[in-house]
Amino acid sequence: MISETHRDLLESTALAHVATVGPNGEPQVNPVWFGWDGTHLRFSQTTTRQKYRNVQRDPRIALSIVDPANPYRYLEIRGKVVAIEADPDWEFINGMAKKYLGQDTYPWRRPEDTRIVIVVEPEHSTQMG
Amino acid sequence: MISETHRDLLESTALAHVATVGPNGEPQVNPVWFGWDGTHLRFSQTTTRQKYRNVQRDPRIALSIVDPANPYRYLEIRGKVVAIEADPDWEFINGMAKKYLGQDTYPWRRPEDTRIVIVVEPEHSTQMG
Repeated sequence: MISETHRDLLESTALAHVATVGPNGEPQVNPVWFGWDGTHLRFSQTTTRQKYRNVQRDPRIALSIVDPANPYRYLEIRGKVVAIEADPDWEFINGMAKKYLGQDTYPWRRPEDTRIVIVVEPEHSTQMG
Repeated sequence: MISETHRDLLESTALAHVATVGPNGEPQVNPVWFGWDGTHLRFSQTTTRQKYRNVQRDPRIALSIVDPANPYRYLEIRGKVVAIEADPDWEFINGMAKKYLGQDTYPWRRPEDTRIVIVVEPEHSTQMG
């Protein structure tokens, strides 16, 4: 589904700019850390974020990922949110801190935050570069 | 409208990840070069691109811009497309090549392309970092 030429971006520390559709059908986009297991792309959210409510209302999602080493090489993925997983022990967000910061523990943890994991199944992709 | 602390990103060579809404209400996102004149944000498109059709159908748009020097500093802008300008002499896209590549002429010009300029009026912004 995702071109072999650009699959390395899914293993990289590039950010994914995640677009969802808001309550009035308007687009929203912001950057996130993400993980890839070969089938699904995952990112963390707190339950207070609008993106969390957006994907519960409309699971359609798009991600734009640019090669940090080459701004003219990028991947756009369109897909849908197929699961929202709990992350009670912060295992996933700590794994993201490991990937992106080289730290064992997510440093910006706030006790009042409830973290969940958005699981995306890619359905279509385009690439450039 | 845009926090003074993050206005420098609009003058930087960061990419903007532009989210629009597709024909079936689904989100779409991809990176673009952009310019900023203090009031409007502009980016180039060819008339064959889906993003061009999207903003004619629904002018609502969102942009995510990350500081190239600091991935934890970013700006999200929501707004609307207020004009679509012609670019018959490729003045705008050549200006973007100057900004991003330091070249006077856009190097990937294809004679068959019709280039237009999407003009965005920011209505709301959020920032981090």
